[in-house]
Formats: sequence, C-alpha cells, structure tokens
Amino acid sequence: MIDTLAILAPGLLGASVARAARACGVAQRITIWARRPEVRLAIAREPWCDAAPETAEETVNAAHLVVLAPPVSRIPELAARIAGALPAEAIVTDVGSTKAEVCRATTAALNPRIFVGSHPMAGSEKSGWEHGTADLFTGRTCFVTPLEDSPEAAVATVVKFWDALGAKVVTAHPDEHDEIVAHISHLPQVLASTLGGLLAGKPAKWSQLAGNGLRDTTRIAAGDPTMWCDILEHNREEVLRAIRGYHHKLHELESAIANRDWADIRARLERGRHWRTGLSA
Amino acid sequence: MIDTLAILAPGLLGASVARAARACGVAQRITIWARRPEVRLAIAREPWCDAAPETAEETVNAAHLVVLAPPVSRIPELAARIAGALPAEAIVTDVGSTKAEVCRATTAALNPRIFVGSHPMAGSEKSGWEHGTADLFTGRTCFVTPLEDSPEAAVATVVKFWDALGAKVVTAHPDEHDEIVAHISHLPQVLASTLGGLLAGKPAKWSQLAGNGLRDTTRIAAGDPTMWCDILEHNREEVLRAIRGYHHKLHELESAIANRDWADIRARLERGRHWRTGLSA
Repeated sequence: MIDTLAILAPGLLGASVARAARACGVAQRITIWARRPEVRLAIAREPWCDAAPETAEETVNAAHLVVLAPPVSRIPELAARIAGALPAEAIVTDVGSTKAEVCRATTAALNPRIFVGSHPMAGSEKSGWEHGTADLFTGRTCFVTPLEDSPEAAVATVVKFWDALGAKVVTAHPDEHDEIVAHISHLPQVLASTLGGLLAGKPAKWSQLAGNGLRDTTRIAAGDPTMWCDILEHNREEVLRAIRGYHHKLHELESAIANRDWADIRARLERGRHWRTGLSA
Repeated sequence: MIDTLAILAPGLLGASVARAARACGVAQRITIWARRPEVRLAIAREPWCDAAPETAEETVNAAHLVVLAPPVSRIPELAARIAGALPAEAIVTDVGSTKAEVCRATTAALNPRIFVGSHPMAGSEKSGWEHGTADLFTGRTCFVTPLEDSPEAAVATVVKFWDALGAKVVTAHPDEHDEIVAHISHLPQVLASTLGGLLAGKPAKWSQLAGNGLRDTTRIAAGDPTMWCDILEHNREEVLRAIRGYHHKLHELESAIANRDWADIRARLERGRHWRTGLSA
C-alpha cells in the first residue's frame, strides 16, 4: 500500500494509472498535476483524484511514489523540476515508451532521488486523460527497467505497483527494452504506416475492396503521429537497426520470388506461420 | 434461379458456395465432385449436396453454372477435363485468388464454352470443406473478372449469382484485378510473413511480450503456405511490383529517420493515419 501516489501530466496512460490505483486500492491518496488549468479543474472533480494542486512541486511534496506521464521527450525536464520538492524516500517512475535515454537522463536529473523506469505496453488509438480506464493494464506487459545501480528495494516497489494494477511485469535493462520494443512495437508501426502511405497513393476504390487481412495489418497506422515521432526520435538507433533487419528479410523473399525459388519461399512462409501460431492468444 | 449448380473440388470456399447457395435458395439442385472418394461420401450426406457423382464430367453434365474451386494452379486442367461434358448453355466460373493467367488459360481450355472468372475475397486461417459456412461471403467483396470478349449475359449471370450469395460484387479486368489484389492482399501477406520470419529469429520471450498491435499486424502470417505459394506464383509479376513499391517507401522512411527529418517522418505517419481512418469499418 502506498500512502501518497502522485501522477504528473496525465494523458491516457496517466489517467488510467489513477483509475486503476483507485480501483485496486493500492494508494491511500492520489494527487495529480496537469499543465493546463482547465484540465486540473476537471480532474479535481474525478473520484480517482484527491487533490490537483497548481504546481508539480506541490503535487509531489508528500509523495511516496511519483509517476511521470508526459510525452517521452519531456520526462527528464519534468523530473528536474520536481527534484528539489521530493521527499527523501520518494521513488519516481514513468510510463514512457522508450527507456535507454529517458532512464539515464531522468536518473541524473533526480539524483540523489531514485528513478526506476516503467513502460506499460498498453494504449489505444485514442489519447487524452478522458479516455483512461481502470482496466487498461490488466493482463498487459509492463516493463520495469532498472539501471545497473538502481536500488533493489525501489525496483521491488515499482514492480509491486504495476503488479497491483494487474499488469504482467517484466524486468529488463533499458537498452534491452529498447531493442525488444523496436522489434515488437516500433517496427510493426513503421511497417503499417508505410503500407498505409503506399496505398494512400493508389486509387481510393482499391482500399475499399480490402478484406479483414488488410484491416488487421494496418490497424495501428491510425495511431497518433505526435506520439510516434517522439518514440522514433528516442529509439532512433534501435528502430533503424530493426528496419534494416526487416529490409534484408524482405529483400531475400523478393529475390526468391523473382528467382522462382519456391522451396525457399515456402520455408519462409512456414517460418512466419509457425511463429504466429506460437504467439499466445 | 439456377436449375443445377455444380461445384468441383470444394475446399473452404467451394463448400461455402454450396452452403450459401442452399441457404439463399439460388440453385434448385447442387451437384458436387471431390477428388477423394471419402470426401465425396461425406459431402453426399450434407443437406447442401444433392448428388456427389464419381467423376467431374458426370457432375457437370446437366449444370447451368459450374464453380471450379481447386487451388489456382489446377483450375485450367480441371476446366480442360470437363469441357467436353458441359451442356452448351453452361457458364463456368471459379474462386481463384489470381485472375490474369487463370482467366486466359481457362477460357482457352473451355472454348467454345464460356468462362467468367470470380474471386470472392473471403476466407479464414482455416482451410478444408468442413469449415465452410453459409455466410462466408456476406458483405465481402467479390471480383468478377470478364475478359474483353466475355459475353455480357454470362457476366450478368455470374454477377447475379454472387450478389445472391450476399457478396459486394465488383467487376474488373483480370489484369486490373491482379494489380489491385497484389497491393491489398498479397503484399500485406508478404509483409506479415516477413515480420513473423524476422521475429522467429529473435529470443522467443520477445514475442510473448507483444501487445495487440503486433498480433493484429501479423494475424494473416498464420495463413496456409501451400495456398500462398500458389498465389505468389500466379501473380508473381504484380506481387514483385508491389514489393518494390513498398521497399521504396520503407527506404524513404528509413532515410528520413536516419537524417532526423522529423517533418517528413510526421508527414508520412499522417498520410498512413489518414488513409487508415478513411478505411470503411
């Protein structure tokens, strides 16, 4: 049980943390700070918010756990802003989709206060705090990404917190996290957006003829470009590596089709099928 | 209303045609031929089959409409086999996923009997006649692909047939059909299988951490490799063209990320999003 949970700059994820924390009773008191006064006013009326002070500093000054929920690019600066206001025992985490840069910069900004990064792999095509839900994290993967010297007790607190919110917690080094999500999340986004962009240049009637296969394959292309630019910027190296790996595989399949190497083509299709049917449902 | 509908070599699609035709009452009598005796025996007991003769020739000898439902590569040879047994007024169609080669070869094989190609864009990861359903075509696109000299009355009969089965019928030249499906069906399959193949080479735990985005993006990778080899072989030129177009777009995005050209990256993500949100639900 956490005495006071503070959430800063809530969007869909931050507001879902507040709702989920209230629903499962993991925190006694929830304080929230949003940059815009009208959002503070609206959030203050919600049953999952006990106080919505005017400043971030005030919001965290009695907090035991702080969740930084702004876009990835603004996490370190928000951390720097609250560093001096944090109680000595406070632990800070975040919900950012990339971790290597963020964990190093935020740890430095908060020093000597403790930061342990988090990345709940949850979301939707919708964004904004109004769309938050108490069950957004239920059964979803949540990475907790300590650095080499993160104190074990702080890591355990953050793990326990996400566990209480219903997530399946996985601990990984920030660098490993970024390599993994580049492949399982950022690359699929790049591929879907690219396919959407290609078809956008073809006659409009083509796309309207599509079956469910195309719909499924491109669903995530509807995601928020601002958020995705942010993610691609902060995981640029790993994303480029993943795209190059994909390019290589696609080129091999293209050559096999050009050369009518049906045994090789079939082996590639079989490999993809075997992988996909092995993906837990 | 068709007097006698004959369906040859039914798999998932052929059996669904029989079920749907019975359900909507578009044919008085349905005769079916399958290559394997045990399948003929099983199908003969189904309420959507009135007769399952031993030979394809016998099955079509009183047919007004014939649906050829084997894999794409075996359509022309099956047509050649029944050509001499068809009544003069019979019209033949198929359910093949590629059309240019198939329509030309099958039209030649049947001459002077009439062939008008069809491609109902329906299916599932399951295959086999047992998995057929009466509503498989409901609301789904069905291409009807006449050649330049296909008789109008025959085209109208085939269009009316699919319409009765609940499909949204679109008429297109076989060449145009193949270019369209290369982009909206075959390319997505190639991309999903390639992503599955890439991830199959990474640590198994990575994939188990994936969210719904990856699941959606790769769902079709579970499709039947035999069927897809067949499709890629028969639409090889158009598929290669589509892959090259995609390669080019992906390379442009990769360069933009490498060069930190965020305005260009954002424009590409926006284009993909705009296209996807415009896709009818």
